[in-house]
Parts: sequence; structure tokens; C-alpha cells
Amino acid sequence: MMRSRFQQGLDELRTKLLEMGGMAESAVESACDAYAKRDAKLCQVVFDREKTINDAERMIDELAVDLLAMQQPMAVDLRFILAVLKINADLERVGDQAVNIAQRVLDLLHEPGLDIPVDIQRMTAAVTTMVRRALESFLTANAEVAQAVLEMDNVVDRMKDEAFVTLVHNMKDDAPHVQQYLDALLVTRNLERVADHATNIAEDVIFWVRGADVRHGADRGKAPGETAS
Amino acid sequence: MMRSRFQQGLDELRTKLLEMGGMAESAVESACDAYAKRDAKLCQVVFDREKTINDAERMIDELAVDLLAMQQPMAVDLRFILAVLKINADLERVGDQAVNIAQRVLDLLHEPGLDIPVDIQRMTAAVTTMVRRALESFLTANAEVAQAVLEMDNVVDRMKDEAFVTLVHNMKDDAPHVQQYLDALLVTRNLERVADHATNIAEDVIFWVRGADVRHGADRGKAPGETAS
Repeated sequence: MMRSRFQQGLDELRTKLLEMGGMAESAVESACDAYAKRDAKLCQVVFDREKTINDAERMIDELAVDLLAMQQPMAVDLRFILAVLKINADLERVGDQAVNIAQRVLDLLHEPGLDIPVDIQRMTAAVTTMVRRALESFLTANAEVAQAVLEMDNVVDRMKDEAFVTLVHNMKDDAPHVQQYLDALLVTRNLERVADHATNIAEDVIFWVRGADVRHGADRGKAPGETAS
Repeated sequence: MMRSRFQQGLDELRTKLLEMGGMAESAVESACDAYAKRDAKLCQVVFDREKTINDAERMIDELAVDLLAMQQPMAVDLRFILAVLKINADLERVGDQAVNIAQRVLDLLHEPGLDIPVDIQRMTAAVTTMVRRALESFLTANAEVAQAVLEMDNVVDRMKDEAFVTLVHNMKDDAPHVQQYLDALLVTRNLERVADHATNIAEDVIFWVRGADVRHGADRGKAPGETAS
């Protein structure tokens, strides 16, 4: 009976975390949409969304702490709850990045529009895919999907570095529009931080799944090959 | 006996976290020193230090998980261990910021030296003080010291905003040195992120200490004034 309430709590924790992940991902999409369209109203949506995300973070934290306090969790449940706590913190910071991007948009509204020679939309698609895949790897406890997220991070890093070179070049050649290039550069760095959070989440999933593997399968401390298969 | 081993584990956790905090703080100081002196060797010290910090993070994480698995912790110990896990993650990311700053220094070595009209040293002093105070608030379980850290964060935010305005102005007026101003701007943003991590740590300390207060003092769930004093 007690065990079953605990299991229900774990299910609730998983559901709430995935909801929060969806909110964080859509906040980033809205912020980048606001950037593309120079849309101040959409920025307000992002600011409001951040408050909801912060509330969700606190609720998930408290639920996780209550579950840990409720009974002595088995190692696999313990690692799951700890992974939730870490992922929760990363998702909240994804929401912060969306806010940072929206603040850049407000900054830009005073400046004339300008074609920026960097594909922000492509980078946005890449990082929101990373967040989605990282959450999918969590939902399905799939370390391979998590591993794929880590590899996507290299692609995003490269996009960021290329954008840096291009934008610095443009700043030098076209000084009157420094502000616009700089805002684009800062947006790419915010997106890269979203990618970093997705990477952290994927690493947490791997930690959790491998911990579960260790518990269910091989003995810890033995050299590879020593374990019975 | 079991309880005493658990208590020893908590003490070890506290000591190791404070050591890690010292390493993270000194990594930021070394990185800013490297920036001021354009010293590539000092950058290497920062890169090496990051590896040590990452190892320490993993060790602290494992120790915390082992303690949670060892016995059913009391609420106050549970919150302490969870605070350690969060602070640990933030300190590791302080180390990452030191690395980012050191990478900016390597970027700058190809450019001629230039007097930058922003007091990076003053900002460095402010953010490393925040990290130190946040750790002090943890060591002494002092929510008031933690609160002071949150207030310092506003000061650092203002420094960052002022630096932004100054440096964008300089980029426009002095395009050939865009790279140097941009690197300074990115360093101030890295420092601001260090301040954010110190703020997170202070918030975790407040969560932990208030949790302990709730447990020791007033009943949860009652309206203010309903509790016996």
C-alpha cells in the first residue's frame, strides 16, 4: 500500500517533469519567434511563461523531496529521483535563456531592421530538438538517445563558432549596425546554453540508466569481462 | 554506530564541497588574472583546474548518493544532502565559466593590446566575493549571509549592464578593435554567470536552512499566527 503510493508519486514526478520540459522548449521557440518577427507581445508571453516554469520547478522539487522523505527508496528509485532534481534545475534554466533572448528582442526594437547573415532559425530548431530528444531519452530510459543528444551538442557548438566569426567580421565592416550583429551573437550564445542544458539532461539520463543497469545487471567494481552475462 | 558513520559522511561531504568551492573560486581568479596579463600559461592552469573540479564534482555526487542510500535520512539531513547536490552542480559550472574566460584570453592573444574602459578587476572581485560569501553562508547555515549574496547580485547585474552600454558604444566608434571590446563584453557576461551561480547557491542555502527551521519550529500547513510559539 505504502509502496504503491510511492510508485504513484514517481509517476506524477515523471509526468510533471515532462510537462515542464514542454513548457521550457516552447518558451525557447516563442522567444526565437519573437526575435524573427520583432514581436514585443510574444516577448511578454515568454516572460509570463517563465513564471509558470519557476512555479513548476518548485513544485517538482518539493514532490521529489517528499518522495525521498516518505520511505527508503531502492537504489534505482533514488537515482531516478536525483536525476529528476537535476533535470528540473536544467529545464528552469532553459526558461531563463528564453527570457534572455526575449530581452535581446526588446533591446532590438529601437534599432532599424537588418538582414543577419546567420541562420538563427536553423540553430533554434537544432537546440529545441536536443531538448525534446533529451526528454524523450528520459521518458524511455534510453541511454542511446541520450548519447545522440551529446553528439548534437558538437554540431551546435560549431554553429555558434561559425556565427561568431561571421558576426565579428560584420561588426568590423558595418559599424553602424554593431548593435544588431551583437544581439544576434548573444542570441546564438543563449541558444548554445540551451544546448548545454539539454546535454546536462542527457548526461543525467545516462547516469540514471547506467546506475539502473549496474543495479540490475553487472556487479560494480569488477573489471569488464569478469561479470556473468 | 550506523548513525555515527552517517554523520561522518555528512562532515566529509561538507569538507569536500568547501574544497571544491575554493577551487572554483580560484579558477575564476586565475582566469581573470590571465585576462589582465594576457598570460597563456595561466590559461592552461585554468584548463587543468577544470578537470580537477569535474573529478571533485563526480566524487561529491557519488558520496551524496551513497549517504542517501545508506539510511533513511531525517528531513533536515535530507535537505542538507540535496542542497549539497545542487551547490555541487553550480560550483562545477563556475569552473566552466573560468574556462570560458580563459578561452577568450587565448582568442585575444592574436590581437594588439588595448585599454578597455571597463573595470573587469572590480567586477571579478565582486563575483568571487559572492562565491566566497555563498560558501560561508553554507558553512555557517546562515540565511542572512545568503540573503546578502542575493543583493550583491543586483550590483553585479548593474555592472554588466553598464559595461554593455560602454562597450557597444566603443565598438561603434572604434570598429578596428571590435574583437577586443567584444571579448571584454563576453568576459563580463561570464562573470555575471558566476554571480548567478553564487546566487543559486545562496538560494539553496536558504531553502536548506528554512527547511530546517520549518522542521524544528513552526508546523507546516498552518496559517501564520496559528503556530504555538
